[in-house]
Amino acid sequence: MTPIRFAVALAAGIALPLSAASADEGMWTFDAFPSAKVKAAYGFAPDQAWLDRVRLSSLRLTGGCSSSLVSGQGLVLTNHHCVRDCAQQISTGTADYIAGGFLAATLADERKCAGQQAEIVTAITDTTARVQKAIGTLTGAALAKARDGEVAAIEKEGCTDPATERCQVVTLFGGGQYKLYHYRKYTDVRLVYAPEADAAFFGGDPDNFNFPRYDLDAAFLRLYENGKPVATPAHLTWAARAPKEGELVFITGNPGSTQRLLTQAQMAFQRDVSLPALELYLSEMRGRLISAMAGDPEKTRTGQDLLFGIENSYKARYGQWQALLDPGFAGKLAQTEAELRAKVAADPATAQKIGDPWTDLAKLMVGYRDIYKPYNWLELRAGGFSDLYGDARAIVRAAQERAKPNAERLPEYQDSKLALLEKQLTDDKPVYPWLEEISIAYWLSKTREALTTDAPPVKALLGKESPEQVAHRLVTGTKLGDPKVRAALFSGGLAAVQASDDPLIRYVLAHDGDARAIKDRYRFEIEAPVTAAQSKLATARFAAFGTDLYPDATFTLRLSYGAVKGWTYQGVTVKPTTVFAGMYERATGADPFKLPPKVLAAEGRIDKTKVVDFTSDNDIIGGNSGSPILDAKGAVIGAVFDGNIHSLGGNFGFDGTLNRSVSVSTVAVEEALTKIYPAPRLLAELHAK
Amino acid sequence: MTPIRFAVALAAGIALPLSAASADEGMWTFDAFPSAKVKAAYGFAPDQAWLDRVRLSSLRLTGGCSSSLVSGQGLVLTNHHCVRDCAQQISTGTADYIAGGFLAATLADERKCAGQQAEIVTAITDTTARVQKAIGTLTGAALAKARDGEVAAIEKEGCTDPATERCQVVTLFGGGQYKLYHYRKYTDVRLVYAPEADAAFFGGDPDNFNFPRYDLDAAFLRLYENGKPVATPAHLTWAARAPKEGELVFITGNPGSTQRLLTQAQMAFQRDVSLPALELYLSEMRGRLISAMAGDPEKTRTGQDLLFGIENSYKARYGQWQALLDPGFAGKLAQTEAELRAKVAADPATAQKIGDPWTDLAKLMVGYRDIYKPYNWLELRAGGFSDLYGDARAIVRAAQERAKPNAERLPEYQDSKLALLEKQLTDDKPVYPWLEEISIAYWLSKTREALTTDAPPVKALLGKESPEQVAHRLVTGTKLGDPKVRAALFSGGLAAVQASDDPLIRYVLAHDGDARAIKDRYRFEIEAPVTAAQSKLATARFAAFGTDLYPDATFTLRLSYGAVKGWTYQGVTVKPTTVFAGMYERATGADPFKLPPKVLAAEGRIDKTKVVDFTSDNDIIGGNSGSPILDAKGAVIGAVFDGNIHSLGGNFGFDGTLNRSVSVSTVAVEEALTKIYPAPRLLAELHAK
Repeated sequence: MTPIRFAVALAAGIALPLSAASADEGMWTFDAFPSAKVKAAYGFAPDQAWLDRVRLSSLRLTGGCSSSLVSGQGLVLTNHHCVRDCAQQISTGTADYIAGGFLAATLADERKCAGQQAEIVTAITDTTARVQKAIGTLTGAALAKARDGEVAAIEKEGCTDPATERCQVVTLFGGGQYKLYHYRKYTDVRLVYAPEADAAFFGGDPDNFNFPRYDLDAAFLRLYENGKPVATPAHLTWAARAPKEGELVFITGNPGSTQRLLTQAQMAFQRDVSLPALELYLSEMRGRLISAMAGDPEKTRTGQDLLFGIENSYKARYGQWQALLDPGFAGKLAQTEAELRAKVAADPATAQKIGDPWTDLAKLMVGYRDIYKPYNWLELRAGGFSDLYGDARAIVRAAQERAKPNAERLPEYQDSKLALLEKQLTDDKPVYPWLEEISIAYWLSKTREALTTDAPPVKALLGKESPEQVAHRLVTGTKLGDPKVRAALFSGGLAAVQASDDPLIRYVLAHDGDARAIKDRYRFEIEAPVTAAQSKLATARFAAFGTDLYPDATFTLRLSYGAVKGWTYQGVTVKPTTVFAGMYERATGADPFKLPPKVLAAEGRIDKTKVVDFTSDNDIIGGNSGSPILDAKGAVIGAVFDGNIHSLGGNFGFDGTLNRSVSVSTVAVEEALTKIYPAPRLLAELHAK
Repeated sequence: MTPIRFAVALAAGIALPLSAASADEGMWTFDAFPSAKVKAAYGFAPDQAWLDRVRLSSLRLTGGCSSSLVSGQGLVLTNHHCVRDCAQQISTGTADYIAGGFLAATLADERKCAGQQAEIVTAITDTTARVQKAIGTLTGAALAKARDGEVAAIEKEGCTDPATERCQVVTLFGGGQYKLYHYRKYTDVRLVYAPEADAAFFGGDPDNFNFPRYDLDAAFLRLYENGKPVATPAHLTWAARAPKEGELVFITGNPGSTQRLLTQAQMAFQRDVSLPALELYLSEMRGRLISAMAGDPEKTRTGQDLLFGIENSYKARYGQWQALLDPGFAGKLAQTEAELRAKVAADPATAQKIGDPWTDLAKLMVGYRDIYKPYNWLELRAGGFSDLYGDARAIVRAAQERAKPNAERLPEYQDSKLALLEKQLTDDKPVYPWLEEISIAYWLSKTREALTTDAPPVKALLGKESPEQVAHRLVTGTKLGDPKVRAALFSGGLAAVQASDDPLIRYVLAHDGDARAIKDRYRFEIEAPVTAAQSKLATARFAAFGTDLYPDATFTLRLSYGAVKGWTYQGVTVKPTTVFAGMYERATGADPFKLPPKVLAAEGRIDKTKVVDFTSDNDIIGGNSGSPILDAKGAVIGAVFDGNIHSLGGNFGFDGTLNRSVSVSTVAVEEALTKIYPAPRLLAELHAK
């Protein structure tokens, strides 16, 4: 299970400030950083050498997080919650590394994280002209196929060594730009250090997205190649010093997705259709997990990572939804749209060129509503949270798609995607049958509820069985828990898949057609024309505001700037830093305010005046988890692990007066590595010149 | 636990058709039935004798349902789902009457239902002038107190024998009318017959609010007094004949609540605030119950009634919410408001008199949003689904309120309310500690999530404990499961309560102040001015449309008329009747499409051409469950148990082309009592002349 702080959403494009006051707004690409603007505001701006060094020290983690190199031996700083799944995977009934924490005494004790890959951006190339030429004047299915085919070709041509390179074409500005990101990738990533979850996530879900916080949400990984640590001469300097209120700070990382360019109609779709559906889906599953785990230590151990992910996602999306329901916030977004429309109306050339994409999108959202229920339940949620169902579907679809020419495949099965897919499918990871069953049964049950008993796809999925019976039959019968079986089916292709008598493979073979059919309707009837309309909106924005804009987040490397600062809301001022004293005061001994024994034992040794967590007004979002927060010199002073509750509306618009990032300080990490979890080996490495 | 198909909501008033086509719209009071209109449409209208006989044969069940007298010995027809809680209460680990059904072989085998009371309307008196005079020109808290005091006095004066009478002032037309309903009440109600839940609720939650249906959702109760069946010479005739498509039918019963008069601002509050909050609340609790019950037969037995109630409520409210989110439906509601505003604008006298209640209500909804979170969590949801917490709070509040003069109490503790409250508190009923714990822990957990860890009421509720620890301590320590303990505390009043060392009583004493404070803010800052504004809207409607209108539903006796008919939606036509053949065809053997053994065993004997369930276009809503459906002669041809999915929007507006009631036919009940659950005693009683 991966951190699900973000999910790639419908729209991408460019963003506008909600108000002129949002001085520190923006998730800037490294090839278009607004140095002059930063210089004007703060009297300092990074030069190209600074940018290059920071870029080459920043890693994307394919599980959905960000991180940074902090030593010459491939040591990587990230969040605890970004390695939770790894700690989960390497745990057993007798060694629970989520509850107890993990610290490798020597290199030999560092443990591989299944499915994890780290990626460094080595080049960014503009391929806009090539993709736009392929699209030409096409629409609908033809547009989608031409675009996806050209992207497949660019990605394939861009990388020569699939073992160490990854190529990815990123759509920016809603189709206004297509850029090829070239990565150096590392497929052997190992866990070095993770504190106990009760220390890293002190305050648990109730305190998540809130502040003051006292979380030691930091962890270390290490890059390996050929069984040895990777030499990383380009890395950041570790500066274990407290942040200063007001000081300029930078955050580099991979914000997952923002949707600041949605039209009013698209936002209404999210507010009224997709966000409510998602929240209800997560909510009942959360309840099912909580009760299933209660009083059962082994289920508590094996289910905790999924529960964490669901609760985190639920709260993040709840904040987004509430932002759209807030009359004040929504009013500002409406005003932004009205201003752009007025500018276009006053510019006949642009108006003539783009037509009325707002009305086009409103009509498309009507169509999207019509297909959303089957699309959501048969395609987006297929298998629920079941890993094995997801694996089975990927194996079946990969086999079907690889039988086609590269340019004609579903994008996720193009040649450039297969290396990571194969790694994720074939890495060894534990399987928890009870979680698999509960997930599949839940999905089938909710699908029947939404589509009704008599809907043909529901009748096909269930036949004469109940959701629980189907789930039990599939999970007890499948052999896909064995990575060798998955690997054999993946490499065996369509012939192996069709010959398989694995019940899960056979189930997907029998029923995935309904999902693919509705997926195609979405791709051709909704996604393709939405992209076309958004591309026109990008044209409108470039015409109205020039090109000095940043694109919506796309889980690619961005740099944001800002200052260490708190905020004031409804008359209450929140200070930007917390110290260890507050952590001990907040502890009640009862979950989730229970400090682990090692933290309690260290109380007398800890310097309680030292900073634990701090806030800044950098513009970030889910996917930035694990990002380094840097001072003007480019030294690391913390790791970003959260945003405050106001930042959740940042998906749709940035409010510089309230939105804050939340980081754990390097001071706190050092204090912990010195006095709570003594780690001289790590400290020496961090301090090495 | 009671059927929660309805809950009393903020607004009450009068309703307008969504369109002129809604010929059969209306939940009419018995003192203002539109006989001329029915005569014009159907060529028949009930005369006063017909109305009187039907009224005196119609019973309100205080658990939240409707029912009717169908013999001279107090035999009462209602739904199975209206006696589910009774079947639950009388069950034990070795006799599960929900799973296995219940049939009393003799009178002596009939079993008392705890908390259940049946009520027949014996008189309706207009007390509008008296209440309006008391209100005068008061506002806010003064208005609420004056109104509630006068109501208390009227109710107390209206009934002389608290053992057999109940008096209740009902607010109709949003304060346009106050009427005193006088009831003959029966406090000893016993279970006679209930089929298995798998037969009564065949298709379960997936088929709930859908059609075709095949549910034997009928049951019988009997009224007792002094240990003997009550003689009921006034009763309905049992007509075991199939409904005819197009025939005129009437439904008499107690629709719980409609909100057809809400302004756009009030509907937006429901759509954006209260309905989402409720659905998320029910959703996670549903998940918690499902997992807690899975694989545990005793928890499955003891939790099934609550789960049924939650799922039913979730689906009903989901339908309401979706109706408000449906652009077409919402557009019609907006148009209705615009039309009324235009009429008022064209009528200076009325405009002068009422001012602008729409804007008043919009401002009030802003204030309501501001207090909704604490009001919802501290007051509306206090204790979650815990019976014992509810009992403890009622005991504490009753003691506190009874120390005040009748006119100054919270309305629910006025003298006229105490008899039923005492019965509900002191009747013997089983307590399931695991359900109590899960409910209280859930409530505390969600309250902390919503109000945040640092909110003073949350700190007070939890102290240094977790939600689970508090719940466990209270439930294991309390003695309130013993009805004698509850009775002693109730009768002992404030002294007894304050001297109690019961942990649940002490917990409520310690923390209920926060709940009462926010409740008062709601009563005085929101509810009272909302009522004042709605009363102005009633004036506007009377001026615009005359007084030939029906009031919103208030869980008081109403009569609706219509025809047996199906409907057509998105090109699909649904027939109005189903037959036994379809039931056997739909059975899969897997829950919830598993027919019980007796039904399966009877398959060869059953006449499969006989009607099971049928639909009609009568205007009904939750609370009508158990209502008799009558032919023109006033004979019973079925019992209403559901509405179709379209009827859920009926909370806000009636659409005669799609809204349908769903009833189980008397034919099906007789077939079952003859061939599945042979009950010659009952059949003879039903057929007695």
